[in-house]
Amino acid sequence: MSSTPVSSLTLNRLSLYLRSLRALRAEGVETVSSLELAARFHLSAAQIRKDLAQFGEFGTRGVGYEIDQLIERLSRLLGLDRTHTILIVGAGNLGSALARFLSFDDRSFRVVAAIDNDPAKIGRKIGDVTIYSPNDLAEVIARTKAEIAVLAVPPEPAQEIYDRLIAAGIKAVLNFASTRLSRRDGVPTKAVDLRIFLEELGYQLQNVSPTPET
Amino acid sequence: MSSTPVSSLTLNRLSLYLRSLRALRAEGVETVSSLELAARFHLSAAQIRKDLAQFGEFGTRGVGYEIDQLIERLSRLLGLDRTHTILIVGAGNLGSALARFLSFDDRSFRVVAAIDNDPAKIGRKIGDVTIYSPNDLAEVIARTKAEIAVLAVPPEPAQEIYDRLIAAGIKAVLNFASTRLSRRDGVPTKAVDLRIFLEELGYQLQNVSPTPET
Repeated sequence: MSSTPVSSLTLNRLSLYLRSLRALRAEGVETVSSLELAARFHLSAAQIRKDLAQFGEFGTRGVGYEIDQLIERLSRLLGLDRTHTILIVGAGNLGSALARFLSFDDRSFRVVAAIDNDPAKIGRKIGDVTIYSPNDLAEVIARTKAEIAVLAVPPEPAQEIYDRLIAAGIKAVLNFASTRLSRRDGVPTKAVDLRIFLEELGYQLQNVSPTPET
Repeated sequence: MSSTPVSSLTLNRLSLYLRSLRALRAEGVETVSSLELAARFHLSAAQIRKDLAQFGEFGTRGVGYEIDQLIERLSRLLGLDRTHTILIVGAGNLGSALARFLSFDDRSFRVVAAIDNDPAKIGRKIGDVTIYSPNDLAEVIARTKAEIAVLAVPPEPAQEIYDRLIAAGIKAVLNFASTRLSRRDGVPTKAVDLRIFLEELGYQLQNVSPTPET
């Protein structure tokens, strides 16, 4: 595996290419050109060629990319050729929905357990996923080998819970709590602040010009 | 209102400042220095001063910022001094959770209706929010004055639904569908692709060095 750092933006484009290729493969398509791929999924053909060339993937002129081969290489590059285990932390509305939503139909991600501090929820299930007590955090992580925590808790306790998750062995965190975390080095942490996205749209709404330039 | 374009990153920081200031105000604090604000919410004091100076806000040396005043100005700047109306499109697991989750406890955002094409769901409620048929889209948008659509539908129909929403009068879209949309000019559209965030963490997990530099 190359250890060249790949930017977040590039990674996100590779994820999109992979998803687009899978959709084409599901339709029975075997090869695709960068132009076809771009047109079909609203991408840039030049960007596709540049991104894939960076990883040694050159389509054959006039034929394009072998879809199966490219899917396999991109999956390996993105670490999707093995299953990542997810722990849902906070089984409220959002956490429960994420537990169901993130149970994807492929083998790359699997929700293995949920944690909630409400005694009434402990022992219950969200789909196939059992809810455990925070007291059993370390044991649950050790037993399920959960790697990625999806943090869906209120902002106030988020930092303390984040620190506890990492102490208990969690390797990466997707943070939905509406607060800025003091992040631990070496633990990939990504924030998804739904409220901030809405506020950005709200701002843009009042500043939309009738004839935008872009 | 100034029409100077403000970057997405700056806007997101202003949202964070506003939220932090509100948390302090709720505790009864009346003034805060950039240093205190930074320490408390894991922000950069220099960045806070720079961002706020850009909008004519200079704290008083030795006293800091008047919190009430700053909250009011940031709210106005971000367009949060009025209520933005939200339409949930797709009342599945994610859409239903978002309907509940986005019903915030302040006046800036309000979920006014939901749309789903499942006849069994039409007429039902998610909390206080009624689910309507896609056939009534234009009427629902006109009546509720819904501005922002939260798109929580499968990837395949997302583009067609996006186009229909805009034709029916929606002004901005927060897109949770795992697909790239061909966006309409003049309609602020923000993508939140939960799967891509997870794939990015998955990639970073396999590339975490034991002693990271950052």
